[in-house]
Amino acid sequence: MGHDRGSGWFDRHRARLDGAVEAAALRTHFSVFDEPAAPPDAESAGSPPADPMAAGRRAFEAWLGTTFPIATPGAEGTIAPERSPYGYDLRVAYPRVVDVDALVAAAGRRRRPWRDAGPDARVGVCLEILDRLDARAFELAHALQHTCGMPIGLAYAAGVTNALDRSLETLAWSWSVMTSVAGSARWERPGWTPMDKTYTVIPRGLSLLIGCDTFPTWSDWPALFASLAAGNPVIVHPHPRTVLPFAITVQVCQEVLAEAGFDPTLVTLAVAEPGDPLRQSLAVRPEVAIVDYTGNADFCQWLERRAGQARLFTETPGVNCVVIDSTPDFEAMCDNLALSLAIFSGQMITAPHNILVPRGGIETDEGTKTPAEVAAGIGAALDRLLADERQAVELIGVLAGEEAGASVDQAMARPSLGSVLVPSRPLKHPDHPGAVLRTPLVLGRSSVDAEIYPGDTLGPVTFLIETADTEESIALLYLTADRHGAVAASVYSTSEDVVAEVRSVALDHGIMLSENLHAEVVLNAAWAFSDFHGGGSPSGASYVDASYVSPRFRMVQSRRHA
Amino acid sequence: MGHDRGSGWFDRHRARLDGAVEAAALRTHFSVFDEPAAPPDAESAGSPPADPMAAGRRAFEAWLGTTFPIATPGAEGTIAPERSPYGYDLRVAYPRVVDVDALVAAAGRRRRPWRDAGPDARVGVCLEILDRLDARAFELAHALQHTCGMPIGLAYAAGVTNALDRSLETLAWSWSVMTSVAGSARWERPGWTPMDKTYTVIPRGLSLLIGCDTFPTWSDWPALFASLAAGNPVIVHPHPRTVLPFAITVQVCQEVLAEAGFDPTLVTLAVAEPGDPLRQSLAVRPEVAIVDYTGNADFCQWLERRAGQARLFTETPGVNCVVIDSTPDFEAMCDNLALSLAIFSGQMITAPHNILVPRGGIETDEGTKTPAEVAAGIGAALDRLLADERQAVELIGVLAGEEAGASVDQAMARPSLGSVLVPSRPLKHPDHPGAVLRTPLVLGRSSVDAEIYPGDTLGPVTFLIETADTEESIALLYLTADRHGAVAASVYSTSEDVVAEVRSVALDHGIMLSENLHAEVVLNAAWAFSDFHGGGSPSGASYVDASYVSPRFRMVQSRRHA
Repeated sequence: MGHDRGSGWFDRHRARLDGAVEAAALRTHFSVFDEPAAPPDAESAGSPPADPMAAGRRAFEAWLGTTFPIATPGAEGTIAPERSPYGYDLRVAYPRVVDVDALVAAAGRRRRPWRDAGPDARVGVCLEILDRLDARAFELAHALQHTCGMPIGLAYAAGVTNALDRSLETLAWSWSVMTSVAGSARWERPGWTPMDKTYTVIPRGLSLLIGCDTFPTWSDWPALFASLAAGNPVIVHPHPRTVLPFAITVQVCQEVLAEAGFDPTLVTLAVAEPGDPLRQSLAVRPEVAIVDYTGNADFCQWLERRAGQARLFTETPGVNCVVIDSTPDFEAMCDNLALSLAIFSGQMITAPHNILVPRGGIETDEGTKTPAEVAAGIGAALDRLLADERQAVELIGVLAGEEAGASVDQAMARPSLGSVLVPSRPLKHPDHPGAVLRTPLVLGRSSVDAEIYPGDTLGPVTFLIETADTEESIALLYLTADRHGAVAASVYSTSEDVVAEVRSVALDHGIMLSENLHAEVVLNAAWAFSDFHGGGSPSGASYVDASYVSPRFRMVQSRRHA
Repeated sequence: MGHDRGSGWFDRHRARLDGAVEAAALRTHFSVFDEPAAPPDAESAGSPPADPMAAGRRAFEAWLGTTFPIATPGAEGTIAPERSPYGYDLRVAYPRVVDVDALVAAAGRRRRPWRDAGPDARVGVCLEILDRLDARAFELAHALQHTCGMPIGLAYAAGVTNALDRSLETLAWSWSVMTSVAGSARWERPGWTPMDKTYTVIPRGLSLLIGCDTFPTWSDWPALFASLAAGNPVIVHPHPRTVLPFAITVQVCQEVLAEAGFDPTLVTLAVAEPGDPLRQSLAVRPEVAIVDYTGNADFCQWLERRAGQARLFTETPGVNCVVIDSTPDFEAMCDNLALSLAIFSGQMITAPHNILVPRGGIETDEGTKTPAEVAAGIGAALDRLLADERQAVELIGVLAGEEAGASVDQAMARPSLGSVLVPSRPLKHPDHPGAVLRTPLVLGRSSVDAEIYPGDTLGPVTFLIETADTEESIALLYLTADRHGAVAASVYSTSEDVVAEVRSVALDHGIMLSENLHAEVVLNAAWAFSDFHGGGSPSGASYVDASYVSPRFRMVQSRRHA
């Protein structure tokens, strides 16, 4: 076996990597993991399970009440911090980190074999990890569903298959950039003694991945693979509410690393109880050279102030705006907006927060529509979308907990927050009576009350804001992004001038913009290989592009006379 | 005129750019600016000056005692802070920045035309700036000589021509990475409505360049061009001792930007008196998204602690070590080391600081040489090298000031610092009696006194350290780099095993390694397009590679149904 396993895997997955490199540049539709996992090799025993989704659920359920078989340096005893938003405790026990020094020392100790294996072998190992994760796709989807509350369809499509594609896209970028210069060169300057030079990719140092709790694999796998492929050991510190998807991920990484003859603790799982300052203790360690974090702005700012020794890759939620100016298809627009509000109950970082509509109404194919009529149109679309309770549950997922449901209920009852334009209603989950579900709430406000827009509400609460006119709507888009940041924005207008002006404002703030969406693509969605995501956060990198991968390694040379 | 001038220049310089892109990947010898500047266009009046060096000196001297014609937002009155290390005041007056708010507001205001011009036009403008700087190469060389104390030959070769090549290399990387994805794409996912997407490079924000005083253009031009080409406005804050080379640079930038129809204040010159906390005030501004700094480690750490809102690109001096194990050509080795100690009086960030020699001596073609004999060999080589006083002056340049000369003299007189193995002697500058010059000093120490190694001395002071054996030398190389960082390292050994072990240690710390140098290439030197530089600093990027350019911009998209 030994280290050449990485190279063997590289060769085996080479065609896939080449396709990914090309697709990442062309940005057309491309997916490797979109389809159900391929059947295992003929050599492997057995045929694929008849119902992979059911098998995945059984694999997930088999973890409940067990001790997860993983060892973490610096850990002692176990904790089982996860409570499912479906209303039960997972009772999966993980090693409890008690000795940060030991964890950091073990993770950060000399990693020459992994560095010296080179980009091809490291990327080969990572590509193999993707395959092994893909083989456990349905198990992972259930783990996501029962920790984050994602509906199972979204968990599988976005949380696993698209997240695997994002990871592959990351590896394509990593490999391209790491191999963008020659490994060696002869330098011949007229009149000078020629020299032979070698160029080596070296890792930046220890990488800390602070997992997020709402959309973890999609947000965090690319960071894991970008750091690992560059040669950095990675400490994975999951959110205490969402450990299992990361535990499975780390287990697969360790398994593949060990098979290739590398130290499996290149990737470690560091779990702490809620409130434990482990992430802070880790982030400020001088050994930590890279921190990835998707989550709230407060901790992002804390990292910027305190973890200056590290390269930060952060993404924070902003206030995403929809500018509505006019539309040639009012119903299609309302259907699209309803879908964007309903999907995973607005808990995606790309979900719309403020819908800006001119007080005098908008021109549509159904005549002028006032803000109230726009709201009514969205409400009607939501009624159509969520009419079937079983299907509705599969679309909106569940809320993070009781407090999110209470927050929606309070928002409905607080006139100071806004007038109720589309009321929220609770849904019952047919299989999980303990789960908290609410349909989207739309509150009406005027642009005068600008200070209320940032989300001090949890759950699916969207504001429909009356503005003086579209010009004010665009100004509000600018100001809101300036003050609070934004990840996604959307515009509806039949005027190319209006669209161009919104596009320029979106570029000012690095916001992904969707224009006149009316079909099944919602502004929340971002596909690997085609959509860029996350550039709008102050310290955020777009993923995936060169800036997301290249600061994780350095090029170093040696030279001698030829 | 208008903005298409940028595109016109892009087309005109396209072949040069293509060559640079290829050379940056192949890393063979490549230079565009190495030769004397080409004669101006036939259209231009007059023929090239007969003696460009003399003309450059006259152009430099014409600045003395004048007010530099440049306007800076937020400035009031002028200051003339530069005192030449050749012993006179330059009396060039620059705008004095008094209103940081006004400077930042002006520099950071909406920069859509520059952004919307796109990568080709921006790179075109920058390529034209390089040409205009090249046309003033000899003026710049004199400005460098008389602010930093560089010898004129080094100022021209490294401070101008190689610095221009480094800048071109930067633009090659910037352009490659900015154009590495398609500008637009059609997304066609089976079963979904097709979408048209556009991808736009947007700048990260306001860029602050804090100039260094010893090797400014070489260190700082790449940062200027990397930020500017990515669309960021740049505030150039020079060291108060070294303003003129930056003032000329900013003047040229503003001239070319204005010709192309862009706001010339995209690049501004912000000068402050010594001790003025302007750089601190600027670095912590929330508008500042990028900070480049080459200089002392204390301020680098200050930036890491306080300017977390910005992407930092820093380079700090370390303790550069030479491991001597054995050599087949003792005299050639000593000649090479003498040259590396003498060139610009050890004031380059890549100069050797510690020479590690086993106590028992090294095997050479002249038999075993003890540490004292190695020192004597270096001393003899220095005598050969510096025998001609006129030539010596042109090699070692001048020290930064009286205190640097005094520091060398004190080091010679302080036995606690080390035994004098090669004494330093003062030289007189034939034309500048006020200049302070010292030949290199080599002090002997034992590896037991490890805590003394970091440079608490100024000027050309190198330590020859006796170690137990080569194994301890390599361990010291590791420890020294671990504690103090290092930019360059060097090894002499006839054993490939020893060289390989040193190489691995150099890779551990991101240090540029030179192996068995014996000809005219010294470990201090780094050539554009072939050598990587600077990766060893904790927060440093290698320049120039993808990590040096890509975090200065983001990819942002918009999308609509096809």
